[in-house]
Amino acid sequence: MSVEHRRGTSAVTVLGADGVPLADTDVTVEQKRHAFAFGNIGFDFIPLANAETDGEGRSSAFGAASVEGLAELSELWFDVFNTATLPFYWRGFEPVEGSPDTDRLLTAARWFADRGVTVKGHPLTWHTLAPEWLTERPLDEIEKLQRERIRREVSNFAGVIDTWDAINETVIMPVFTAERNGISRLARSIGRIPMVRLAFEEARQTNPAATLILNDFDLSSAYECLIEGVLEAGIHVDAIGLQTHMHQGYWGEEEMLAMVDRFARYRLPLHLTETTLVSGHLMPPEIIDLNDYQIPSWPSTPEGEARQADEIERHYRSLVGHPAVQAINYWGLTDDGAWLGAPGGLVRSDGTPKPSYDVLKALVKEEWWVPPTVVRTDAQGQLTVTGFFGDYELSAHGRTARIELTPDSDTGRAQLG
Amino acid sequence: MSVEHRRGTSAVTVLGADGVPLADTDVTVEQKRHAFAFGNIGFDFIPLANAETDGEGRSSAFGAASVEGLAELSELWFDVFNTATLPFYWRGFEPVEGSPDTDRLLTAARWFADRGVTVKGHPLTWHTLAPEWLTERPLDEIEKLQRERIRREVSNFAGVIDTWDAINETVIMPVFTAERNGISRLARSIGRIPMVRLAFEEARQTNPAATLILNDFDLSSAYECLIEGVLEAGIHVDAIGLQTHMHQGYWGEEEMLAMVDRFARYRLPLHLTETTLVSGHLMPPEIIDLNDYQIPSWPSTPEGEARQADEIERHYRSLVGHPAVQAINYWGLTDDGAWLGAPGGLVRSDGTPKPSYDVLKALVKEEWWVPPTVVRTDAQGQLTVTGFFGDYELSAHGRTARIELTPDSDTGRAQLG
Repeated sequence: MSVEHRRGTSAVTVLGADGVPLADTDVTVEQKRHAFAFGNIGFDFIPLANAETDGEGRSSAFGAASVEGLAELSELWFDVFNTATLPFYWRGFEPVEGSPDTDRLLTAARWFADRGVTVKGHPLTWHTLAPEWLTERPLDEIEKLQRERIRREVSNFAGVIDTWDAINETVIMPVFTAERNGISRLARSIGRIPMVRLAFEEARQTNPAATLILNDFDLSSAYECLIEGVLEAGIHVDAIGLQTHMHQGYWGEEEMLAMVDRFARYRLPLHLTETTLVSGHLMPPEIIDLNDYQIPSWPSTPEGEARQADEIERHYRSLVGHPAVQAINYWGLTDDGAWLGAPGGLVRSDGTPKPSYDVLKALVKEEWWVPPTVVRTDAQGQLTVTGFFGDYELSAHGRTARIELTPDSDTGRAQLG
Repeated sequence: MSVEHRRGTSAVTVLGADGVPLADTDVTVEQKRHAFAFGNIGFDFIPLANAETDGEGRSSAFGAASVEGLAELSELWFDVFNTATLPFYWRGFEPVEGSPDTDRLLTAARWFADRGVTVKGHPLTWHTLAPEWLTERPLDEIEKLQRERIRREVSNFAGVIDTWDAINETVIMPVFTAERNGISRLARSIGRIPMVRLAFEEARQTNPAATLILNDFDLSSAYECLIEGVLEAGIHVDAIGLQTHMHQGYWGEEEMLAMVDRFARYRLPLHLTETTLVSGHLMPPEIIDLNDYQIPSWPSTPEGEARQADEIERHYRSLVGHPAVQAINYWGLTDDGAWLGAPGGLVRSDGTPKPSYDVLKALVKEEWWVPPTVVRTDAQGQLTVTGFFGDYELSAHGRTARIELTPDSDTGRAQLG
């Protein structure tokens, strides 16, 4: 698919610091950021951001690389990605009631934000990894605590984290039986749509500027039915989240885009919130819950890495080519500490990039990117900027200006300062 | 499961034609009808009701026994069942636009109603068997024609048919691809909940007394999500329809009741709208769409018939035992002309009853039934009627009275006349 709809052109009049157009001047144009969200989890870097030197603060289950080598790994991260997902799994975030891990996560979120990264919190409401201390509380108390927890996190992180998975995996939530938990009990009692309403309303009221996402792994008609019910109920959803953990194999462009088309008909932005493609053997197809596949070692292999690189390229090309897709969040940069021990990273456990990393970087930062380019203004001080939507820096005579290329920015002015 | 919640007791004062209590009198108490809907399709009997002697009017696809032997077959039908489903598949009902098969169906519906049978129409809205002449019409015209067709049928049959599957298989409706059709086009355009609203609102406005059913074969979380959205949207649903065609094998009580429990939490009556259990080999498990299994001959076998009889007993005992279940409609009395050529009937193609027929009749008309029983009134003319909820006839001295045993009828009066 073409990615031309992601690109724009703007006729920009460049002004000097004195406000006078800079005629016939060499200006360096350089892209600084994609508008499209090329995301990845940032779980691994919480210790680095907090200057922790041991592994004590190491978070569990998803993305927990060793502390050694995190600085180098972070450079690989920032070279490709512009959006970080941070973990707010309630069980880990508030292991003891009343003692949330706010400071540590806030430090990590600011560490990303200071580096120009959009930070997203995941998730505010989920049955899995709900606190064990919540499980047997009365239902009205569970609802009250869930509401309070949403307000607390959204409020404490506002301005740093303004994008949230408001609720995760609602389709299975009330009928989830793998582990007794308080959130499934509540969902079974009040129903799915009231759960979604609860999550979105609390978050929206607390941070009206937030981007709030409905996220699920179930991409069947069940999710369509849920979305249709949620929208009919008048709940304001900013984006539809689609998980695509492909430990059992890449679906191919055709199947992936047919799925995307099904959800695009709700005319909301689509976020591919969780994407995994492995560079080792595939998980057997008969596994239903990916968590049920536990093996002692799941190595990355040369053949697997070649396949993964090819699939990463096809996956990103096809999805960036779909107009409804606004974000692709990959699920883990490194194999070290990866979810399920799967070789789903773009970097090996030893810190060396796999071919998939190079392929993705070449797309995001070369083929779809404008490197520093000298452009000469005309007699009116005008030049043309063409490239992927996003942020661009113009510089001349040691001064710089920033412009944004958007679908609506046919013309613009940039005053160097 | 116990079926005690289906049974009641009423202290009835029996009055003579003169209004005086009939003290110390032998009264014959006889059950005439079950309140519980023991249903079956009545498709096969449309030619008989219309006194057609050739096979020309023979309806297609589902339940179309040969005309010969229908009178005998109908006796087997009336000996067990009290609720008949009649076919309103739009394609067959109105093969030429503007020429609906109203008279013939109305004759058939009255034929059942005159024999004390509740008649149900199936379905008012469905993508499968939508008219071919509808397929390429503009969407607003499809919607208009669908609305008109609902009003027409519900109006023309009111008083004879007051129970309708308002919409069938909504979960798959917008993403159904096996055959291009106008209803899927409409559903994909306006969404599932507006389709359900359209169907229920038109039918409700036309016949406020109607019992309107939301029916589906998809019993996964998708249907739960649809139902939750429909109820949140304020659409008034009278009963949830659950199809259970088990050509691939009986699910067993545990799985069936777990499914029923999932849908019982919406606190609406549950109708097992379409039940099949075969008395031959099972359809292979890898078949997804039952319609894809077409074989030249699918015989009923002695082992299959023994299995089917056992399963019929377990199926009916367990479901009649579940308080939320209000109806079980079996899908075809005879193998002759049965859907998919499957030996799903309770009667063989040669017209002889299978063991499953005898088992079901023994439950419905013996174990759960009060045969004519002589009961003597006391000095106040009172006697006690105990049995399954339903209609009972009291008779003495050549005069009769009818009473209804309901959950609320602890006491009653019956004046013979």
